[in-house]
Amino acid sequence: MSHYDVIIIGAGTAGLNARRAAKANGAEKVVMIDGGPLGTTCARVGCMPSKLLISAANANYGVTKARMFGIETQEPVVNDKAVLERVRFERDRFVGFVMEGIDNVPEGELIREYAEFIDDHTVKLSGGRILTADKFVLAVGSRPRHVPILDGAEDLILSSDHIFEIESIPKSVAVFGPGVIGLELGQALSRLGADVRLFGRSGSIGGIQDPEIREYATKTFAEEFYTDTKATIHSVRKENGKAIISYEHKEQGKIEESFDFILTASGRVSNTDRLKLENTSVQVNGRGTPIYNERTMQCGDTHFFIAGDANDDIPLLHEASDEGKIAGKNAGTYPTVDPGHRRTHLGIVFSEPEIASIGQGYNSFKDLVIGRVSFEGQGRSRVMGKNKGLMHLYAEKGDRRLRGAQIFGPSAEHLGHLISWVVQQELTVDQILELPFYHPVVEEGLRTALQDLQKNLNEA
Amino acid sequence: MSHYDVIIIGAGTAGLNARRAAKANGAEKVVMIDGGPLGTTCARVGCMPSKLLISAANANYGVTKARMFGIETQEPVVNDKAVLERVRFERDRFVGFVMEGIDNVPEGELIREYAEFIDDHTVKLSGGRILTADKFVLAVGSRPRHVPILDGAEDLILSSDHIFEIESIPKSVAVFGPGVIGLELGQALSRLGADVRLFGRSGSIGGIQDPEIREYATKTFAEEFYTDTKATIHSVRKENGKAIISYEHKEQGKIEESFDFILTASGRVSNTDRLKLENTSVQVNGRGTPIYNERTMQCGDTHFFIAGDANDDIPLLHEASDEGKIAGKNAGTYPTVDPGHRRTHLGIVFSEPEIASIGQGYNSFKDLVIGRVSFEGQGRSRVMGKNKGLMHLYAEKGDRRLRGAQIFGPSAEHLGHLISWVVQQELTVDQILELPFYHPVVEEGLRTALQDLQKNLNEA
Repeated sequence: MSHYDVIIIGAGTAGLNARRAAKANGAEKVVMIDGGPLGTTCARVGCMPSKLLISAANANYGVTKARMFGIETQEPVVNDKAVLERVRFERDRFVGFVMEGIDNVPEGELIREYAEFIDDHTVKLSGGRILTADKFVLAVGSRPRHVPILDGAEDLILSSDHIFEIESIPKSVAVFGPGVIGLELGQALSRLGADVRLFGRSGSIGGIQDPEIREYATKTFAEEFYTDTKATIHSVRKENGKAIISYEHKEQGKIEESFDFILTASGRVSNTDRLKLENTSVQVNGRGTPIYNERTMQCGDTHFFIAGDANDDIPLLHEASDEGKIAGKNAGTYPTVDPGHRRTHLGIVFSEPEIASIGQGYNSFKDLVIGRVSFEGQGRSRVMGKNKGLMHLYAEKGDRRLRGAQIFGPSAEHLGHLISWVVQQELTVDQILELPFYHPVVEEGLRTALQDLQKNLNEA
Repeated sequence: MSHYDVIIIGAGTAGLNARRAAKANGAEKVVMIDGGPLGTTCARVGCMPSKLLISAANANYGVTKARMFGIETQEPVVNDKAVLERVRFERDRFVGFVMEGIDNVPEGELIREYAEFIDDHTVKLSGGRILTADKFVLAVGSRPRHVPILDGAEDLILSSDHIFEIESIPKSVAVFGPGVIGLELGQALSRLGADVRLFGRSGSIGGIQDPEIREYATKTFAEEFYTDTKATIHSVRKENGKAIISYEHKEQGKIEESFDFILTASGRVSNTDRLKLENTSVQVNGRGTPIYNERTMQCGDTHFFIAGDANDDIPLLHEASDEGKIAGKNAGTYPTVDPGHRRTHLGIVFSEPEIASIGQGYNSFKDLVIGRVSFEGQGRSRVMGKNKGLMHLYAEKGDRRLRGAQIFGPSAEHLGHLISWVVQQELTVDQILELPFYHPVVEEGLRTALQDLQKNLNEA
């Protein structure tokens, strides 16, 4: 029976960062356990391949939009094979870089099995071996949420885990879940020629809390492909190799439509439920995932630390990386546990227009004051033919600090960085307006919103 | 003979801002004098129409590049008339907004004539009237520099003042001056199908001081169209309605080529030489433009203030606007004169790749430490097929503050804002690395360069 200082369950982004941090902080015997596919969710089936598919989709869309600038084009032809080959080739290249890092882990320090807890210090591997450790990092990642109503479509249900392996762009696809994955992939497939239906249930879209922007975004996507964020689905079945969905169409009432496949994108769930944590002293929340401190990543006051998508919080690579470092460091130094550096929240959906959520969300304010701009009249956005969208900046009444923002508009990924950087530095709206704004740039839209916020704070 | 508190010569961006600021700061009788075309250089013949032409050019270029993503297209057709109509329609719309502001100036407060100084307090208008004032703001703007060697081409020489009035995209054009205007318009015309030759003299390109990036940029543009930044021009003449240029071709030696027209873009010169400043106590520099304090905009200790392109410094709209406000305020309060708020330098060339120059330039460091990144291997840039370029970050040895940067690469306009904001706040490289960097974004290239700078500062 082998004993370790730290066992890290999961060898993804969080686990790899935790390993380095644990070793740098006093842990000598460290092992990672991972029985699943290696290469990180991000590089294999997440951020990277989705951005690759989006690039192809936007290239196709750009050709059809060129006419607005006076450029006459024939209808472009989507060469499915070439599109998907580039996606997979580049994806494999990124995975390759990640694998180089994993290959550098010495023999025996990565066990390719699954683990379950027997007690607070003992795991049993899927191969039967028993390992013990002083401390654990739970970095087991997440998986696409199972949506029972879709079961009838059997093997025609694809998640982001498999979508990048398709042989051709489908003629028709139903997307369940208008979150980041559903929006990005749904729009990309639509722009590559698929007939897309996007279904949601709760009315939410792209994680937008702000009702005015949520409504605007819903309407905008609905102009491009059928979108119903409060859909009523009657039934889903498989028939003659097609997925048949019976649903309430917004205009036509109850109808049945046939789809090549269904993309399920109703969020992700933590894999911690597979660890038998009930055999440990780790406490879990209502969703069954460990309760932890987001500054120390410690689960209660135990010797368990959690990091990455496993914590069911924000499944973002840069957060997983930070969390892995903090969890690994604290696993190394436990029982000494220190809060790590956390960054201002920044979430981005790479749709078009893009969505960016920064800092405090709309729902978290006591007495919210908003600064607004519409991109419809914004100079540079109009020049580029991308004058669609809204941006709201958030402050608390009686306090001139910019605390958060919601963007649905052009270059939101860049504006999102700019805003998150000044939010983290706790700058006031007045201080931000002293910084450079070039001309003509979309950043001038941010200035307009800041000036509006300034005025509204003065009058609040 | 009318007497004023403040006479503002020039009703462009700087003049209009100066007028508002002077009135808000004690000046009661204020008049603007402008005999030239109204609507601001920026909106009429500068930033706005150039960005419009670039949008069309990049739309055309994007169609031809779509194949790399698997999108098959026919050769697009540039509909000259439609391209130029959109440019002019949108340009006129922007000018219209500016004109609304000018139309609000009360009758008699804008004189549509030119002015020359008779003495320190007196100007003579082109119509013959004499006006006097306690204080003056010189906001007369600039004009394209005259290049004598081109004179032989007679009416085939166009500057940015006239290029947007052309009836069709030329088949061939020689561009003199690889600065911001020459690069932006030269590349745009090339991407719209013109056969372009770009000639420079001093080796400079896009204002890039950093030799490594300058060389990289020169090579990159030269791959797209003939570029010689140290060209030898033998002669220029007009023959059969064409401009004939005899020059040393980089590969072919001395050749003669024929062009539809010549775009002259060898910088701009201040219009202050037309004011007869020799009749005042304003002192001028070697180029004949007033010597002034860039924080107060005051010329020496006189009652003259200068703002905008007229000062021959940095012809940028956002600077002209700030300078106008400072000059107008100080003209209002003179003899009390206060330094105004100036922003960290940010200059952008909207070529592709873009060029951005931020903060202190390469040549201004005592003991320069550089942090580097190449965009060739940068993840997101590669995904978008825009993995071309370099970024250098600058610090002074023994000081961890980021002081400046030179970018030639994708999204440089956005990275430029991000960097200029932290440079102005005097953040150290270590502090900047604590801010959010999403994934996968070009901002991660900035992080790579920051990490390199951190390492190099540690070792310096």
